[in-house]
Amino acid sequence: MLTTPAYAAASATSALALFSIERREPGPREVLIDILYCGVCHSDIHQARDEWGGSIFPMVPGHEIVGRVAKAGHDVTKYKVGDVVGVGCFVDSCRQCGACHAGEEQYCDHGMSGTYNSYERDGLRSDRNRPTYGGYSTRITVDEDYVLRIPPGIPLERAAPLLCAGITTYSPLRRFGVKAGSRVAVVGLGGLGHMGVKLAKAMGAEVTVLSHSPGKREDALRLGADDFLATRDPAVFKANAGRFDLILDTVSAQHDYNAYLGLLRLDGTMVLVGLPEPTPLAAGPLIMRRRRLAGSLIGGIRETQEMLDFCAEHGVASDVEVIDIAQINEAYERMIRGDVRYRFVVDIATLRDR
Amino acid sequence: MLTTPAYAAASATSALALFSIERREPGPREVLIDILYCGVCHSDIHQARDEWGGSIFPMVPGHEIVGRVAKAGHDVTKYKVGDVVGVGCFVDSCRQCGACHAGEEQYCDHGMSGTYNSYERDGLRSDRNRPTYGGYSTRITVDEDYVLRIPPGIPLERAAPLLCAGITTYSPLRRFGVKAGSRVAVVGLGGLGHMGVKLAKAMGAEVTVLSHSPGKREDALRLGADDFLATRDPAVFKANAGRFDLILDTVSAQHDYNAYLGLLRLDGTMVLVGLPEPTPLAAGPLIMRRRRLAGSLIGGIRETQEMLDFCAEHGVASDVEVIDIAQINEAYERMIRGDVRYRFVVDIATLRDR
Repeated sequence: MLTTPAYAAASATSALALFSIERREPGPREVLIDILYCGVCHSDIHQARDEWGGSIFPMVPGHEIVGRVAKAGHDVTKYKVGDVVGVGCFVDSCRQCGACHAGEEQYCDHGMSGTYNSYERDGLRSDRNRPTYGGYSTRITVDEDYVLRIPPGIPLERAAPLLCAGITTYSPLRRFGVKAGSRVAVVGLGGLGHMGVKLAKAMGAEVTVLSHSPGKREDALRLGADDFLATRDPAVFKANAGRFDLILDTVSAQHDYNAYLGLLRLDGTMVLVGLPEPTPLAAGPLIMRRRRLAGSLIGGIRETQEMLDFCAEHGVASDVEVIDIAQINEAYERMIRGDVRYRFVVDIATLRDR
Repeated sequence: MLTTPAYAAASATSALALFSIERREPGPREVLIDILYCGVCHSDIHQARDEWGGSIFPMVPGHEIVGRVAKAGHDVTKYKVGDVVGVGCFVDSCRQCGACHAGEEQYCDHGMSGTYNSYERDGLRSDRNRPTYGGYSTRITVDEDYVLRIPPGIPLERAAPLLCAGITTYSPLRRFGVKAGSRVAVVGLGGLGHMGVKLAKAMGAEVTVLSHSPGKREDALRLGADDFLATRDPAVFKANAGRFDLILDTVSAQHDYNAYLGLLRLDGTMVLVGLPEPTPLAAGPLIMRRRRLAGSLIGGIRETQEMLDFCAEHGVASDVEVIDIAQINEAYERMIRGDVRYRFVVDIATLRDR
């Protein structure tokens, strides 16, 4: 085993602190990755504080991992030592169900193995003796089938958030048919929202940001949005009724879906990618224009690779603030205040050097 | 003008009673229809009692009309005197918007002219001096473009409910991709639900009825369902998780969408065609399997004709109880109690003879 420095939460109420974990030597089809950068996702906070229930402690969060292959098992065919690679939200799945066969491992019938706060598996079964630990650590061992290639051209620290925030927004934009000329609204301009704007724009869409905060207008336009609507003004909903083909709703705080649904054209879709608390839904806005309210969860390995290649081709990357691992607890507090533009990324060199 | 006997509600609290209305002589592109049968839709009650607000009184309900062409304007090309025809939920629309051009008049940007409780129009404008009156009357004058042809082979009293209950269920089944082998669930076995079962079955789907009332099992199977699930047993939701491609939800009483959404497979859709009060919606069931919650409103003229032809070809018609117009108030009370299998249809001869 490879003793590996990490940052962990010992319990739901503990600050993250230095911790030591063991990583396994790579098996025949696994690679050992030296982690360079790890993005900080809002779900890291939810899980580290057990806000969704069922958290496994001690927990090493982090599922926006970029690093370099340090060692490859002898049957590995996709990667070689020195390759720049990524790991996203999951490191395994059952590989036998319809979703896995379709390359949509995130919807695995038996439940994907999350990159952290989850368990390694033995086929269909999770092994409760082997918790997974995430990217707030200096290295990780992963099956090559669950590893992504980071194409040249994307600064590595700006590539890390693509592994979650990028694919979470790319997948629904693609799946729900965004193409050149589509009118797309992005609700919320945070880690997910700012990627939604960049990606929809790169797909050729006309992009409008909807935000509670009028102060985000300038940033929205700088990120590539064509228009901005401050949703505190209720007149906005009437004036823009029926305007959008797709609404990508990235807000995780509870909010009224019904008003937003009215902004969709006939047959339009609003896709939730945040996880708000249950909210009263009226049937009228769905029925009166045959609209859809949908959800979408990250993306599969194949689609994540497609997204990374798309980003390299179109010069898309995350706007990040690189931090030292010692700043992680302060970063969590700033994220809760919405004080980040738009993603914290930990420079894992600062953990390796400790 | 043509003085015409009808049954009307004088106010939201009045019982329906005999009333006299004026029908216009058909214009060049209109037909005058002698009404033979008119189905009784639950929305007749909601509107006659002003439960949705904005009702126009006196009101002559009825939008499931079958009759015979008595007179045709000289520019009418589609119908001739003696043809058996139908009129559904609307008698006009703006004819200029995208929805109208697409043959989806029910989603007209300027609002369709309902068959009753609405106004005749002059292009884009509703004419507040000319209320529309529905099918609880002996004749009606309608533009030929808003008239349907009843194909031979469907008993006329059993054809009437197709004009609303039939198209309301046929359209979403088609639009959301039901085909041979699709696994379809129909929630609620009333006027809409029983048509949903018959139509989905005729499309080749494997059909399951979900109902609160275990006593409806026998009827569900008799109507053609392959399976029946009594939803009072919460174990049903776990045992059937991920089972269905499409759920057609015909229930208009408030109910928990979240449990039903869990019955959908990856990428499955649940379509609301009732109009329940707002209900708390959780994001999880949508996100975790990329499911959709959608709505659908009746159907356009072209699709309604397609549905009628489909019904004739497949021997599909509504199960009805034919009543005398004098029984209409009692029929409303029985409908509210759920005591009808599955649609009341007024024999308009009983109004003509009064």
